[in-house]
Amino acid sequence: MSQSAPQTVDLLIEARWVVPVVPHDTVLEQHAVAVDGDRIVGILPIAEARVAYAPRARVELGEHVLIPGLINTHTHNPMSLLRGLADDLPLMVWLQQHIWPVEAKVIGPEFVRDGVELSVAEMIRGGTTCANENYFFPDAIGATYHKLGFRAVVGLPVIQFPTAWARTQDEYFERAGEVHDSFRHDPLVRTAFAPHAPYTVSDESFERIRVLADQLDIPVHLHLHETAHEVEEERQKSGLRPFQRLQKLGLINDRLIAVHMTQLTEGEIAACAEAGVSVVHCPESNLKLASGFCPAEQLRKAGVNVAVGTDGCASNNDLDMFGEMRTAALLAKAVASDAAAFDAGYALRTATINAARALGLEASIGSIEAGKQADLAAVRLSDLETQPLYHVISQLVYATGRHQVSDVWIAGKRKLAARELVDLDMPGILARTHAWRERIAALDAV
Amino acid sequence: MSQSAPQTVDLLIEARWVVPVVPHDTVLEQHAVAVDGDRIVGILPIAEARVAYAPRARVELGEHVLIPGLINTHTHNPMSLLRGLADDLPLMVWLQQHIWPVEAKVIGPEFVRDGVELSVAEMIRGGTTCANENYFFPDAIGATYHKLGFRAVVGLPVIQFPTAWARTQDEYFERAGEVHDSFRHDPLVRTAFAPHAPYTVSDESFERIRVLADQLDIPVHLHLHETAHEVEEERQKSGLRPFQRLQKLGLINDRLIAVHMTQLTEGEIAACAEAGVSVVHCPESNLKLASGFCPAEQLRKAGVNVAVGTDGCASNNDLDMFGEMRTAALLAKAVASDAAAFDAGYALRTATINAARALGLEASIGSIEAGKQADLAAVRLSDLETQPLYHVISQLVYATGRHQVSDVWIAGKRKLAARELVDLDMPGILARTHAWRERIAALDAV
Repeated sequence: MSQSAPQTVDLLIEARWVVPVVPHDTVLEQHAVAVDGDRIVGILPIAEARVAYAPRARVELGEHVLIPGLINTHTHNPMSLLRGLADDLPLMVWLQQHIWPVEAKVIGPEFVRDGVELSVAEMIRGGTTCANENYFFPDAIGATYHKLGFRAVVGLPVIQFPTAWARTQDEYFERAGEVHDSFRHDPLVRTAFAPHAPYTVSDESFERIRVLADQLDIPVHLHLHETAHEVEEERQKSGLRPFQRLQKLGLINDRLIAVHMTQLTEGEIAACAEAGVSVVHCPESNLKLASGFCPAEQLRKAGVNVAVGTDGCASNNDLDMFGEMRTAALLAKAVASDAAAFDAGYALRTATINAARALGLEASIGSIEAGKQADLAAVRLSDLETQPLYHVISQLVYATGRHQVSDVWIAGKRKLAARELVDLDMPGILARTHAWRERIAALDAV
Repeated sequence: MSQSAPQTVDLLIEARWVVPVVPHDTVLEQHAVAVDGDRIVGILPIAEARVAYAPRARVELGEHVLIPGLINTHTHNPMSLLRGLADDLPLMVWLQQHIWPVEAKVIGPEFVRDGVELSVAEMIRGGTTCANENYFFPDAIGATYHKLGFRAVVGLPVIQFPTAWARTQDEYFERAGEVHDSFRHDPLVRTAFAPHAPYTVSDESFERIRVLADQLDIPVHLHLHETAHEVEEERQKSGLRPFQRLQKLGLINDRLIAVHMTQLTEGEIAACAEAGVSVVHCPESNLKLASGFCPAEQLRKAGVNVAVGTDGCASNNDLDMFGEMRTAALLAKAVASDAAAFDAGYALRTATINAARALGLEASIGSIEAGKQADLAAVRLSDLETQPLYHVISQLVYATGRHQVSDVWIAGKRKLAARELVDLDMPGILARTHAWRERIAALDAV
């Protein structure tokens, strides 16, 4: 150990275990993570860290594992205000008789702001520190994430019909450019193009997106092959499967975040691996809407980057990334007929480093490594529900509930302290949630 | 309202909502449940209850829903001490290289007692008030449930090879008779025959079980058609599917609790409905072990009584009945390709009244009705994760975590009060769990 004076840092987090995710499947016992400003500066055994660092603050987590903050790679967070509004319905009844009519009457900057605020509170309490957002009014959405100090990639919507957000295709692109510009220097909020789906976006718009995504160097976040129905419909229309159409249009590349992907040929899986497409698996939404089964283990085996997302609260009905990792791992085994498939270590990657890679943010988040952003979650494992404890990563994925998350940091800033939300106006958020509840319940009853 | 003096009762629970389960899909607002001794004596609006009853104790649950205590219809609770010991392994590696060698060295009255104590704590904290148990040493298991005041149906094991519990078939039956006798008058502990599976139990033993189950008037709790492999193996051996073999032996009747059932023909489904067989669906265990998909919605539609169980913590890895209801509902939709399948109201039945019926206990538990046992769980729905709230039963199944269970009663006795376990020696339980952890980890590492 060097004889030099200890380095002054903002924070030293001392944990019973640290699971850095990179390197893979590693559990560091009695390690500390040093944070200065918004960054991780070191990870070392507690005893050494106490010599090496003079922290301004110290947090001791004697019964906890410290993990990278979880990344939810597919959300429609304003829709948290519609949680459980209309369950157990056929997809088209759900959409056409409940979700769409209500959205049409409530959508706007206030709705998205209040929905995102509720979602941020839920996400932080569940150890999630970054969301890949996909909804209208990305200006208000981005401003809310910025205000709350929550990391997000905000989707710039493009859809082939007029909405409250934009009337024409040109207007969608103009507004997308404006929103992108407004967050160009934001430390936490990034953008992605968010064309809704192949069946609602024209070839011309996809081509514009391809060119602009390259110019702006941002991802393309797209619902793709969610159901067999949409694949068949496209095939009847154009003679191509949606994936083939996107190949022709040049969209199958390493910017693409392809969400759902329940319908895939072996050739398409190989093409995803080859092109560097990231696939976002939303197992609970796919189950609840009976969309189909994503071949998650086949994708993993083919070398495709698989990440996990919750989808919106109208079809899940939560933003619980612990639950989603677990469901992803369990379901992948059954779909692959292999109990060894999609193991706990891989499941954790799908919510951390793979998710960061999908968003083009792997250089800054997704693992606990020196130089990366200090996005961290501490999880208490002493609860009787996680005893006895044989393997930390297995326990995290198969037995841990999100309410065991005790502390959360985003970019070095404490957001949850011993289960208490630090800088959110919870009475205000709940009051606004209740007000929306009254208004929406009345609308849905019409 | 009558003019008579108020009736003195032990307890009045006043809740924001009561979901009695019977009648189906009913949400009573601002209702109270009156309890005297071990029984429910009335359910009525709070204002009326305050006039009608003079309670010795009153519990006000202004943000909670009161539901029947949940019933876990398939557990191996001593195995909670093996939680997460060996995950992500092929079934036979898991069993032959980890679970069985460890069990062989630890099994005995102390192991089952300590495992059941840990499980009871977990179950109570998760709103579960009754378990359908299946493991060796049912004498020690039953004694532990009795001591802890937890309701259980204890399986009387029969298996075609010698174990620490019994050496010969005759000894299995002798010990079964003794254990049954010892709990004959127990208010909380009942018994069931628990032949392990068709592939480990002889025709002769099944015939003895059929006769004795009728004589003793108890259920038969059996793993059946868990995997395609076991069905095929039996077919090659006897020319019959296991279900057909059991039909021949007279076991397909309304005493049968058939667990797993991932492999079923339409004829077998119809036969279950016809004969009054109860099917216990363990969706998370089936997924984790890649056993197959139980056609839960087809069973429901055919009129079969479907209940839900967690299976043991070595293959789940928890005793979370909220999680299990949710997974059952989600998975059934996907398997049936119908988002309207297996709705929330039905999912709640599978953990309450259907479960009670499977155990032959529908006259005394499984719903909040006057005259039934006061097995109750209160769930706080004010957490931001369950806001906004549009539909109580949907929210319970699709958005509620078991940590939102605040209070639990079994036979009128408070077991959980504002999240605190009332009469369990938690330091002792955790100390014994840690001691087993050290011993088992050392054994498994050999």
